Amino acid sequence: MEGEQMNIKVVKQIAECNEDCSNAIKEILKSKNVYLINVMGSPGTGKTSLIIELIKKLKDKYNIAVVEGDIAGQVDAEKIDSLGISVVQLNTDGACHIEAISIKNILGYFDLEEIDLIFIENIGNLVCPAEFDIGEDLKIAILSIPEGDDKVEKYPLLFSTADAVVLNKFDMMKCFDFNDNKVEEDIKALTSSSHVFRISSRTGEGLSSLVTFIEEKAKARIKK
Amino acid sequence: MEGEQMNIKVVKQIAECNEDCSNAIKEILKSKNVYLINVMGSPGTGKTSLIIELIKKLKDKYNIAVVEGDIAGQVDAEKIDSLGISVVQLNTDGACHIEAISIKNILGYFDLEEIDLIFIENIGNLVCPAEFDIGEDLKIAILSIPEGDDKVEKYPLLFSTADAVVLNKFDMMKCFDFNDNKVEEDIKALTSSSHVFRISSRTGEGLSSLVTFIEEKAKARIKK
Repeated sequence: MEGEQMNIKVVKQIAECNEDCSNAIKEILKSKNVYLINVMGSPGTGKTSLIIELIKKLKDKYNIAVVEGDIAGQVDAEKIDSLGISVVQLNTDGACHIEAISIKNILGYFDLEEIDLIFIENIGNLVCPAEFDIGEDLKIAILSIPEGDDKVEKYPLLFSTADAVVLNKFDMMKCFDFNDNKVEEDIKALTSSSHVFRISSRTGEGLSSLVTFIEEKAKARIKK
Repeated sequence: MEGEQMNIKVVKQIAECNEDCSNAIKEILKSKNVYLINVMGSPGTGKTSLIIELIKKLKDKYNIAVVEGDIAGQVDAEKIDSLGISVVQLNTDGACHIEAISIKNILGYFDLEEIDLIFIENIGNLVCPAEFDIGEDLKIAILSIPEGDDKVEKYPLLFSTADAVVLNKFDMMKCFDFNDNKVEEDIKALTSSSHVFRISSRTGEGLSSLVTFIEEKAKARIKK
């Protein structure tokens, strides 16, 4: 037994280490007046499209950067790059969520003196990303109409920690049997502090109220 | 240091333990002539609805049981129960996938002498479930049209290990810009052994070919 002990490494629990790292990010961004938004939701819920539409509405007023989280590939980062926005592609090589350490390392790629707002597109997953703070000031959770109106009940953690919940693809309400009022009630039962936005990134419906919400939240930090 | 050693537990790695457990399930089910199907896909892709429609088509011929995996709640298990089908609700309390040990324990709840087919509805997640075999004979991955046609590229592991890929909500092709041939090519580029089925659980379109595929695969085991 004694001889085998050298192989035993005692490591800090991941959650604790992640918290330290998340706090370090918060300190850095506070000192640089940068506001960080973490966008989460299922695969195909419309995270990239929403970020693109938000960028279009915000880019004349603020300097924006994006971190694109994906298990593999860089198709989304290419879309953001084509808008002339600084973007870093973070490939997690199979991991189902982004951890704070990755974001801390990525901050070095941006000129934080110049940037006001950073969007992070988390991995498409309703479960794991909710468990890991990544130094963000604002969490946006997206649920799209085709996914069904039972998702808040089934995946409560993500929605209970979100500052804003976007009901996306709202133009598809005509095609699907989705009770948006029930979903809003389910969210309110989890947390009184979350705001619900009915949006279609495709038609632009509802987008301006989310833009106003983000500007309102970010203004103390950005000082513009 | 010496005094603290009693707190150090050396545990087997999860992946290895999971493989042992998965193999044990395979042995048990082989000896009982039971065929096990693992159904995976995003939240809202239509896993429950597909399982329900398959049950309706198969239940007069085979004895079926279901394991409903959810992080929380039991709404899906109630739907299955109302069909008169044996069902066990597995709540993972936050975990993003099902592991083999849970399935091994659950087998004790079923009368395996009587059962021919077991469906497992995995947690809604395109990432983590793909990493854990749970003793299944067949893996079905579902991708629904509203999720978008870039998902195979972004989440390759799940689709590369699936025996069958269901393009679900195919009746929604008229509402979305989804290139099903591109998706089929992406799948074929990952694996030559996967079969692609274009299905709508709502209209019943394409369902019978998946039923035939399952019966064909299961017939050596079930001996009916």
